[in-house]
Amino acid sequence: MNRTNVVRAAVTGNLAKGPHTDVLALVGQLFRRQPDEFNHESLYRVLRDGMHQARLTATTRLPPSRALAQALGIARNTVVQVYAQLALEGYVVSQVGRGTFVADMVPLVKPQVPAAAVAPATRRALLSSRGGRLIDDAGAAALQWGAFTPGVPEVRLFPAQVWTRLQNRLWRKLTPPQMSYASGGGDAGLRYAISEHLRHSRGLQCTPEQVVVTSGTQQSLHLVSQLLADPGDTVWLEDPGYWGARSVFQAQGLAVEPVAVDDEGLAPTDKQWLSPPRAMFVSPAHQYPLGVLMSQRRRRKLLDYAALRGVWVIEDDYDSEIRHRARPMPSLQGQDSHGRVIYLGTFSKTLFPALRLAYLVVPTALVAAFGQALNELYREGHTPLQVVLARFMSEGHYASHLRRMRAVYRARHDALLDAIAQHFGKSLPIWGRDAGLHLVLGLPAAVDDQALAARIAQAGVASRPLSLYHLRRPAPAGGLVLGYGGVDEADIARHFATLAQATEGWL
Amino acid sequence: MNRTNVVRAAVTGNLAKGPHTDVLALVGQLFRRQPDEFNHESLYRVLRDGMHQARLTATTRLPPSRALAQALGIARNTVVQVYAQLALEGYVVSQVGRGTFVADMVPLVKPQVPAAAVAPATRRALLSSRGGRLIDDAGAAALQWGAFTPGVPEVRLFPAQVWTRLQNRLWRKLTPPQMSYASGGGDAGLRYAISEHLRHSRGLQCTPEQVVVTSGTQQSLHLVSQLLADPGDTVWLEDPGYWGARSVFQAQGLAVEPVAVDDEGLAPTDKQWLSPPRAMFVSPAHQYPLGVLMSQRRRRKLLDYAALRGVWVIEDDYDSEIRHRARPMPSLQGQDSHGRVIYLGTFSKTLFPALRLAYLVVPTALVAAFGQALNELYREGHTPLQVVLARFMSEGHYASHLRRMRAVYRARHDALLDAIAQHFGKSLPIWGRDAGLHLVLGLPAAVDDQALAARIAQAGVASRPLSLYHLRRPAPAGGLVLGYGGVDEADIARHFATLAQATEGWL
Repeated sequence: MNRTNVVRAAVTGNLAKGPHTDVLALVGQLFRRQPDEFNHESLYRVLRDGMHQARLTATTRLPPSRALAQALGIARNTVVQVYAQLALEGYVVSQVGRGTFVADMVPLVKPQVPAAAVAPATRRALLSSRGGRLIDDAGAAALQWGAFTPGVPEVRLFPAQVWTRLQNRLWRKLTPPQMSYASGGGDAGLRYAISEHLRHSRGLQCTPEQVVVTSGTQQSLHLVSQLLADPGDTVWLEDPGYWGARSVFQAQGLAVEPVAVDDEGLAPTDKQWLSPPRAMFVSPAHQYPLGVLMSQRRRRKLLDYAALRGVWVIEDDYDSEIRHRARPMPSLQGQDSHGRVIYLGTFSKTLFPALRLAYLVVPTALVAAFGQALNELYREGHTPLQVVLARFMSEGHYASHLRRMRAVYRARHDALLDAIAQHFGKSLPIWGRDAGLHLVLGLPAAVDDQALAARIAQAGVASRPLSLYHLRRPAPAGGLVLGYGGVDEADIARHFATLAQATEGWL
Repeated sequence: MNRTNVVRAAVTGNLAKGPHTDVLALVGQLFRRQPDEFNHESLYRVLRDGMHQARLTATTRLPPSRALAQALGIARNTVVQVYAQLALEGYVVSQVGRGTFVADMVPLVKPQVPAAAVAPATRRALLSSRGGRLIDDAGAAALQWGAFTPGVPEVRLFPAQVWTRLQNRLWRKLTPPQMSYASGGGDAGLRYAISEHLRHSRGLQCTPEQVVVTSGTQQSLHLVSQLLADPGDTVWLEDPGYWGARSVFQAQGLAVEPVAVDDEGLAPTDKQWLSPPRAMFVSPAHQYPLGVLMSQRRRRKLLDYAALRGVWVIEDDYDSEIRHRARPMPSLQGQDSHGRVIYLGTFSKTLFPALRLAYLVVPTALVAAFGQALNELYREGHTPLQVVLARFMSEGHYASHLRRMRAVYRARHDALLDAIAQHFGKSLPIWGRDAGLHLVLGLPAAVDDQALAARIAQAGVASRPLSLYHLRRPAPAGGLVLGYGGVDEADIARHFATLAQATEGWL
């Protein structure tokens, strides 16, 4: 029985019952096009491509390793290893006693052919116009772990034991109000701890009351859009900038106006200065993704303009805690004397993203409105999580984790710079070094950064093309946004070598 | 030194420094109007009214019990007891070693005079038009615990030990992808467990893939509004109905059309049938708040209409698991053969609200869009919580907790009916018995239910006036929505007696 027949037999046999059919059928199809023997590499590729092309969709159960190995005539251990690698990379999730499932992910690289699952015409007939735009403009990447996924911190060093201890202590005496619906802006203890931290580390002027706890920066942006802007109002966005802010603003009916970024930060044109927006979104401590630190002169200019023209300044201070060299400049909020700054912070970068806790600092006059909106729109309040975090902070674990992580990230940052120098010398510009969890490797104008990133992804390394962060097309500059936050220092050289090898013939 | 002087001395003395000033000043002010001695009752009232009137605002620290007792010349134990009572009722939160803070809450009863903190004119100058409307129409209540707060389950019987054990087991081997950003519609294992549960207990037709996990029904509604409706589109809402749906739909720019409810469920007028909306929001299993079970005939009519006219049916199945007498009718989703139903469920009623986990079941063609929107708009994914819940369900704890709670709620439901009969005989109609966590006590047309609820709140018992759930004003009928879910069976008679006493002279 040749290999094709083996697969066909499996598909029509016992294994074909239920949720395994897709996988075996797919493997069979791809198998026919596959010239070589099945081995670790080819099986990995077939499965991964199947997921990238959305032919293997989320929650599909993969066949048991023994069954697949038998059907393909390869060693079971090969299948086990491929599953393990896919799990490590976040493609699949293993559930003890239940099997291995395809994880949720949108394709890392948009497939050349649309996913077969649902015809786009059908989908568009179902979605609203704004829903269709939201999906078409989607910017979120699929993979959120592995070298060099941007924006992801080192979650493996999170002090899980301390956290679990605090969690258990709380759970032994949770009160009914802590388990019921919340109202207002979050747990009082957490708001106190955050305000103390921000006043000391980021120079904010704020009382605990001004802190409003949310489930993430996206929710913070939604509240700001709803409460401070009406449909049709203009909001300035850094270009290149954070795709997630664009998504929320557009979904809330705002007109997004791209504003260029120069080496001092947000740089509106003369014409743009003449038409004040309702709000501007800036990341002054470490511009996302270029990494520019906004100059003192530009800060002054923006704050004066905001006060004079009644513009809201939305300050996204997403990773400002993490600086490898210089001391951080204080926040814009701390420099503002007219109450025009809405400050956004998050624990996604300093602790871990799946914690889903973030915060706003709003002017006193808006505290009640933000708390009420949080209730009306979300009935927000992961109170048990908030209380655990409050204790984690008040007992000093947050500060010591930050100190520890700064050293870790500095070493990784330096290792990535070394690797870049080793492979490319000084031939490519590097933007945004010395702070945060990522940097940008600039590319020559002739290089298509999206095609290059796709090539690199095929080699097994993640990166995000800079052009995806640009609002205006064609993007003026290409590059690769490389996250080093979640990559072991010892592995950086190896992964970067793989990346560099994949660029051969491109640069 | 008379008592006023004691307070004044305290205010100007040591205690007045920092955050205690407000409280002592307030107590002093109210003290002058207070004819009686300070005792438990009057101190409780002064503090609680201060919070209701937003004169004591969230996160304010109350003076240490010893200091306040000294300043007022009363026993320290009295202060301690008053603080404990306020804590139990959710007004204040005690933090060991840090003191007692005013909890976040919007006033239970709108104060006669606007809160002094921020002049409304200032606030309106800062907020957008839609933001102002959102705040003005706010429906969320402040207190979310205590007899007879509607919509709150018995959180004290949640099996916290089992939960903690599963939590600890997971935390010992959390994987990096589980701690990083998620993508798609939630943890695969949880979606599998939810789909199994819904197919068996609610007759849904669904695969795990169709389940999309969210952080609450409000977020589910936001996704539905964004993806399936455009600004200006009409949505039918039950009248009276769920205030939270109205808030989200309006914030998303939809035109909310109130549709009456009769004893078969949603009852559009002849004229309304002629103008199909983009979507309709219904709670067929236990209409919120009236409790009507939608008839089979009405279900058929709505589903046929939806299929014929391309209308989305948003089915809110919030508390359908909890029925005291008859077997639940299957969900609308299970009866729909045209893929027009979007099903919403939540764990807020069956487990506890602060878990903040809920879900949608969407037609297959929309699965990818909902997962992507969840990422774009929220970067959603409390993955550790989701995984713990998946195990809680797959190990059978969810089903056994539901079984246990059904018996508990049935006993409380019966106790409340007994108490009503004892005080009012059959003089007042009762709506929505036999299911869920609340019922409605109808009031004679002449009675102002909001004024009566305020009077009852003064006596220390919570209730929600039915007219607050009505979209059209004046509301056609008044009543008191009474939640028995979170009240011990043994305490129901006592609390209801207090309520009945407070209605003397009104009925």
